[in-house]
Formats: sequence, C-alpha cells, structure tokens
Amino acid sequence: MLAIVPSATAPEPIEGDFLGKHIVSVGQFCRSDLDVLFDATSSLRTRVRQSDRGVAEIAKGSVMALLFFESSTRTDLSFQSAMRRLGGEVVGVSNGIRFSSAYKGEDLHDTIRAAGCYADVITLRHPVAGSCRLAARYLGRLDKKVGRRPILINAGDGVGEHPTQALLDLFTILDFKESLDNTCISMVGDLKHGRTVHSLARLVCAWGARGASLHLLSPPDLRMPPEVVEMCRASGVEVSEASRIDDRLRESGVIYWTRVQEERFENPADYEAIKDDFVMTPPLLRSCSPHTLLMHPLPRKHEMGTRADHDELDADDRSVFFQQMENGMFVRMALLAKVLSGAHV
Amino acid sequence: MLAIVPSATAPEPIEGDFLGKHIVSVGQFCRSDLDVLFDATSSLRTRVRQSDRGVAEIAKGSVMALLFFESSTRTDLSFQSAMRRLGGEVVGVSNGIRFSSAYKGEDLHDTIRAAGCYADVITLRHPVAGSCRLAARYLGRLDKKVGRRPILINAGDGVGEHPTQALLDLFTILDFKESLDNTCISMVGDLKHGRTVHSLARLVCAWGARGASLHLLSPPDLRMPPEVVEMCRASGVEVSEASRIDDRLRESGVIYWTRVQEERFENPADYEAIKDDFVMTPPLLRSCSPHTLLMHPLPRKHEMGTRADHDELDADDRSVFFQQMENGMFVRMALLAKVLSGAHV
Amino acid sequence: MLAIVPSATAPEPIEGDFLGKHIVSVGQFCRSDLDVLFDATSSLRTRVRQSDRGVAEIAKGSVMALLFFESSTRTDLSFQSAMRRLGGEVVGVSNGIRFSSAYKGEDLHDTIRAAGCYADVITLRHPVAGSCRLAARYLGRLDKKVGRRPILINAGDGVGEHPTQALLDLFTILDFKESLDNTCISMVGDLKHGRTVHSLARLVCAWGARGASLHLLSPPDLRMPPEVVEMCRASGVEVSEASRIDDRLRESGVIYWTRVQEERFENPADYEAIKDDFVMTPPLLRSCSPHTLLMHPLPRKHEMGTRADHDELDADDRSVFFQQMENGMFVRMALLAKVLSGAHV
Repeated sequence: MLAIVPSATAPEPIEGDFLGKHIVSVGQFCRSDLDVLFDATSSLRTRVRQSDRGVAEIAKGSVMALLFFESSTRTDLSFQSAMRRLGGEVVGVSNGIRFSSAYKGEDLHDTIRAAGCYADVITLRHPVAGSCRLAARYLGRLDKKVGRRPILINAGDGVGEHPTQALLDLFTILDFKESLDNTCISMVGDLKHGRTVHSLARLVCAWGARGASLHLLSPPDLRMPPEVVEMCRASGVEVSEASRIDDRLRESGVIYWTRVQEERFENPADYEAIKDDFVMTPPLLRSCSPHTLLMHPLPRKHEMGTRADHDELDADDRSVFFQQMENGMFVRMALLAKVLSGAHV
Repeated sequence: MLAIVPSATAPEPIEGDFLGKHIVSVGQFCRSDLDVLFDATSSLRTRVRQSDRGVAEIAKGSVMALLFFESSTRTDLSFQSAMRRLGGEVVGVSNGIRFSSAYKGEDLHDTIRAAGCYADVITLRHPVAGSCRLAARYLGRLDKKVGRRPILINAGDGVGEHPTQALLDLFTILDFKESLDNTCISMVGDLKHGRTVHSLARLVCAWGARGASLHLLSPPDLRMPPEVVEMCRASGVEVSEASRIDDRLRESGVIYWTRVQEERFENPADYEAIKDDFVMTPPLLRSCSPHTLLMHPLPRKHEMGTRADHDELDADDRSVFFQQMENGMFVRMALLAKVLSGAHV
Repeated sequence: MLAIVPSATAPEPIEGDFLGKHIVSVGQFCRSDLDVLFDATSSLRTRVRQSDRGVAEIAKGSVMALLFFESSTRTDLSFQSAMRRLGGEVVGVSNGIRFSSAYKGEDLHDTIRAAGCYADVITLRHPVAGSCRLAARYLGRLDKKVGRRPILINAGDGVGEHPTQALLDLFTILDFKESLDNTCISMVGDLKHGRTVHSLARLVCAWGARGASLHLLSPPDLRMPPEVVEMCRASGVEVSEASRIDDRLRESGVIYWTRVQEERFENPADYEAIKDDFVMTPPLLRSCSPHTLLMHPLPRKHEMGTRADHDELDADDRSVFFQQMENGMFVRMALLAKVLSGAHV
C-alpha cells in the first residue's frame, strides 16, 4: 500500500515558529518550543474551564480532515474535540476509511492530496511507519498546483512516532511535578515496540532536566532499542534497566505503565509467556512512593488486573490516566492553534 | 463486555431542575417536568421554523460525543441535528465504533470516561440493558479527577429503556390530541420485548390523564410484562388486552403500531408463526375511527404491508409517522438545551 | 432494495432559479444557469482564498445530511468541506450506513424521508441508477406532513448521473481555456459505463460552443452510448471515435482520461483483455500538444502507469487533476449556496 520512504527527509524544526509547519516527529521540538506549547496548553485549559467564548474564534474558518487508517478512540475524539472547541470544522470519510478508495488500493500519495485540496490541516493515523513523512512531502507538492499548503499532523504511524501522545504525557508530568529535575521516570512494559515510550524518552532529553533519569522495566526480549538508550545517555539522562519489579520502580517520581500489545507478536506463545510479567495491581501501587504518579496511555487490559483492580487503582489520587486524557485535548488544541494561526493563545 | 449492573442505583429525578442531570430513564420525569420539556419543544419548533438565529446560541461552546454501539439511523441523525441546530458541536468515532478499542475489548467503564474527558454530553446507545446507568455512574467518578461532570443521555440500551423515543411519542400524541383525557391508546405488536411501548406506558402514567386507557394487542406469547400492566392500573390507567384486531382498536384515539423484531426470537419458527398476526393495511386503516392517529416508531417492514401499502397509508392524514420523526429532533433539542444550560428556551 | 423508477418524472429545470430545487441531473442546466453557477464558483474561490469570513454566513443555520450508500472519498470530503466552509452543519450515519437500518432492508423511500425530517439538504450517493429521482419524489411528499421541503443533491447514482462531477469538470476546462470554441475534448477509457463522460458530454452540448468537438477513444466494446453521440451531433458538436491512441488525441485541447472500472465487467477475462489498451504515460504526454489539459476524475490506478509515472505526470503543468479536485469543492459550495439561499454570492 505504501512505498518505502527515504528517511532522509527530516521534518523541519519548529525553532519558535509553528505557523504552517507539519508536525510529524518529536524531534522537531526543542526546549523553548515545548515551553511555548505548554504555556498555550495551560492557557487554553483555563479558558475552556472558564467557558471563554474567544477560544472558539481561534480556528474559525479552518477545516481539519481526519484520516484514520487505524482506529484510536482517544486520539480521534480528542483531535475532533480540540478542533471544534477552537471553532474550526472537521471532515472525515463518511462510512469509514475501510470502505473507501483510500483503503481499497489508492496510494496514500493521492489520498492525502485529495484531502489537502479541501482541508487546511490533515490529521493522519496510519499503520505504516514513515507514512506521515511521505504524506507531508506529497502535500508540499500541492502548492504548485492549487496554491494551498495544508498542514499534516501525525496522529501515530505504526511503530514510527506518535508525537502528540508524548507531548501530552510530558505536559502531564510537568503539570503535577513542576520540574523533571532529579526525577526518575519508570517505563514499564513492551519497550521495544512501544512508540509512546520511545517518543517520551526523546522529549525528556529535549527538555533537558538536571538529574532526570529513566528506569526501564521490560521482559528481556522487549527492551528499549539501544539507540534510544544511547541518545538518552548522550543527553545526560541516566538510564537503568530491569526485567522485574524492583524498589527503584517503587520509589520513582513517575511510573509510566503500558500494555504489552498482543498484535505485535508473531508467535502467540511468546506473548503468553510474558504477558503477565508486569501487572499493576492495588497491592503493588500501595507499595509505591506516596509521591509517585501512575500514568498509562490507555486503553488498558489485564496489565492493570481485573475490573475491580481498575476501580481500586482509579480511586487512588496518584493515578492520573484521566488527567492525561483530558490534557491530550488541550495539548492538541494548543498545537492546532499554533500551526494554524501562530497566534499567542 | 459489560459487568452486571446493580439496579439499586436509581437515576436522579428531574423535579424541575434539568441542569447537569443524566437522562437515563422515563422514571425521572413527573408531570410538571414533562410540561416544561414539552413547552420548550414547542417553542424550539416554532423558532426553528422561523429561522430564529438565537437558537444556534443555546449550546454554543458545548461538545456532544455520540457513542452508538448499535446503529439507529433516526436516533443518530436526530441527535446530531438537534445539537447542531442548537449551535453545539458533535464528535464521534471516525471509522465506526465497530473498529475501535471500545468494541474490541475495552470496558465501557473506560470508554465512557474517555469520551467524558473531551465532551460535555455523551449520547450512548448500547445493546446491553443497564449500560446507561453504569455509564452515568462511572462518568460521575471523573469529577474527582478532571473536575468535569459530563452528562449522559440514554439513546436506547437494549431491552432496557429508550426515554427520548417515549418522550417524542407522548409529545406527538399531545400535539395532535391536546389532552389524554378519556383517550384510548392501542399498542400493537411484540409488547414483551418492545422497550418503546414499555416506556410510553410509563410516561402515560406519569402524565396522569383522567380516563386514559391502554388497549394492548399482541400474540399471546408476546404480551406486555405484568409489572407494566400493574403499574398502569395502579396509576388509574385502565388496561385491556387482546390477541387479534378488534373494534376497540378501530375506535382508539391513538393506534401505536410496532414491528415484531425478528432478532428477538431464538427460534425462527416462532417468529414465522406470528409475524403476520398484526399487519396494518389500507383496508384496516379505512375501518378505523376518522379521529385516530396512526403512529409507528419506524423503521417498518411487512407489518405495514407492501411498499404500495406504505404509500397509501402515508397519504392518509391520520398517519403521523413523519411528524413523530421530526418531533424527535425538537424533543431532543429541548432536552439538550435543558440539561446543558437549564435555560428558559 | 429499490423499486423500478418511472423515468417519466423529469427533474425541474433551473431556468435562473436555483432556490429550493433538487439537483439530480445535468439536464436541468441551460447555458445561463451554468454562467450563474460558475460566476458564483469563481467568486467563492476568491473569497475563500482571501479568508473572507462572510462566506461562513451563507449557509448558517442549515443542516446537510450525507447519505452515501457507496463510498467516494473525494465527493464525500468535498461536499462536507463545502457545507462547512459556508457555515452550514453536516450530519451523517455515525457508524457507516453499511450497519444501519437503511442498509439492512429499509426502503430508500423511508430512509430519505427520515433524513428529510432533520436536514435541509440531503446529499445522496447510491449504487442504483434513478434512485436520486425517486428520493426527490418522496422528499416532496414530506411537505404535506411536516411542512418541510428538503433539497436532494445527486452525488452519483450508479450508472445514472453524477452532475456535480460534470459541473466541476466543465468549470475547470473553462477556467483554463476561457472558451470551448473550436476546442477538441478527447475522452478516453470505458465510455460505455462511465457516467462522468456521459454527463460532461451533455454539459458541453448545453454550453453550446462554436466548433467544439469530442474525440472518443475506447475499446470497441466500451464505446459511448449511441444516444449520447446523437445528442452531441444534434447540438452541433462534432464527434469522432477511435479505438487507439492517435494524433487527434495528441492535438486535443483537453484530454479527459478515465479508469476502466474492473467492477463493471461480469467476466474478468474481458477486463484483462482491454485494461491496458489506454495507459497515459510520461512519454505519451510528452508527445501531446503543449497547450493541452490532462484531466482525470481520480482515483487512478494503472491507467496512469506506475507510481513513478504518476509523479512524473503530476509534475507536468498540463496535468490539472488537483485543480479539478479543488474546484469540486468550490462548485459544490456555489451549488449549495444557490439552492439553499438563492443569494448572490
């Protein structure tokens, strides 16, 4: 469905100027870009909570097309809500992309430009890594034809990146902790395939905290890729690894739990062998620091135990999954506001 | 997919205050609540017909999420149109909920809170009875996490309730008849499984008309549940039952026809045996009172005969299915306006 | 699913008055109607490019329902974007029409009226020819019931018509060529089943250019229907036919390329036998007039060669597929503005 993408085409850094830029990678953000984005996020959150009607003027007249070649309830609903709350419009494939020409054989090269002929910003989720870079490149070619420069936003491309997830995660940590200085973040689960933890690790490096560290817990075959670990160390972020629950996890400032995704395993037996290695339960949470944050990108299954366990975990003030989700909408609002209007919000 | 719900958690009565309340059952409405709601419905209908632009200010800045785990063309389109005409925004699952995590194993407990992190009101349709009460309960728990109190509206939960259908039915009867006093309402079809007729019967009791009566026509195995019949009698509503078309039906003020739903029968032979017991045809309608109203919640199939029969029935002024449908939009507008803003409309 | 439609019910001619009219056929448009529509199209295009906020007032308060019984990414997204940019609202079937009562056995006669109870304009795409005329007829019957006269717009009905595609095609030709006088338009591909080329041929006749001609290239079994050819000749449009690439094609002012649609062939061998008869490649385009326009309604597959061929063709200034697509949105904006408000735009 998609040709191999030359990885040479690096996305443009933000460097203080969001207006009109495609957002395809966390690598585009430096510390000061994150400061600007997170300030806008906090500001928009406050304004939404105060029912400030000016918010609905920010993206007025702009149209966002949603192209989700993979489903994702949270990313989907939060991008729609974000654009709507900014006063912008949203269009999508009426009967689901699964039944469209885009799914039945049309190249993404053409589908993305079709959407680009109608919309000002396109939010793309696609199972193939690199597809968002390719899409951004082809959208650029529309400029010579129709004088339009629609913006692409990566809403997850396979094992590639999911930059807005990492942004909302970092925003949430900072929202509760105020600083990453001397903070240990434990990441738990399938760290090999989990693009969320890769992207978050990169953002922690971009943030550049003093004394920040990562503690990586995974089954031995699902460890964080060495290049991510090396990048962290090169940035001055200390990294430790473990293959079972330990005291360092229990004492972490942040515990970032993830699901081991069955669909990534070729051999079901491999999945069965490790799926219960890391289960967050109420007794485990009780044994953790009273100052920790328990995070999870959701959806969750048995890696947080039973339905009753979920209820008990949710009742704990340290569990901030729902704040993470809501912040996802506000971070996306800030990002859309910045790329569409560049304005101070 | 859904845990058993303790039926103990009764929904909050309206008692004159709609603002912020979940709408899960017709049992929440007393006579004066219905008066308020139906006045608002009439008022909004007039204002829409006069293209009053103030209508589009009523829900401005509010976002509704639609979660339809079962399809329902009328309920779906009318809720969307209602929210849009009030100036509110609507978000939904881009590729259909069938392909989402919500469908593929995530608990409703979590899906509903995801939607609740982004939206101000959630319209839920679900095949499992009791799921709307459960959803409302879990939405309540979001308050402690994100300070949000999103509102749940039941758009049909299996064999449970479908309160907005019953509200639009009662509104339509009153719109044509002005009063239920001394009115006989015949309900025809599968009265055992039909949640619509259960809910309408309850609302008739809540309305409290003098001399109102119900005439219930069904195959012997598909009679109205005894607890509904008893409730009616306890409320002073006279109830008669029959298993074939009779003169009492022909002389009714209202004839509420329904479809015998094939999907409710475990044994196809049972369905075949009774499916033609009640068919509304032009000759039958001709034999009915000139003052009757013929109602049907639609969609309809052979229980109204052939396509040609449909055309002939539709041409009769006593057939008010289309008015029912349109009123559905106006009742939903009134309900959304009331729960979102509480305002006088 | 759909009864045979009496073809007797001809759609109402526009004759200078768009307000409230169903748009089901290109036959409704005479030259002066096209002038009015295309002026509005150009004007709206300019206003959108200048971010004129008055555009979003044109359809304010109006609701469009999309009923797409067949998928069509471009038609779908462009109608949605058109209505949104005019400030109107859009509603659709939440989980895709494939899972709705409309798909599972409800007659279109009823489904269309359900949508008509909630919406002001309905955009219908349906696999059965004639379904849009039928839908328009049944919508007319709503008037006596609910006092509503919703407008139907044909977004493609099987091998019937697809009027907005032909309108955008003619607009694009005129946009680049300014006049059709003495212009030869070559149409290439399956001219038997291609409703797009039938409708465009009719519009060329309605436009009434001096010295305009059509050159029709197709496999012998897939020639343009004789009645279309006769109509063209009766209108003074010269017609030539060929079954292979020739110099007349190369010298055409417009080359309208189309896909041979595999799904139209009962016998796959018949498709295989002719599918490579007409392939537009970069060498072929290089051999064509420097003043030609290369058009295609998209999506495209191998009839424009490989992915690399696509890239090379796209880079040629004579290729105007993307301008065609974007114009589709502007033509649909103009049409919606005219039927909904009749206003000068």
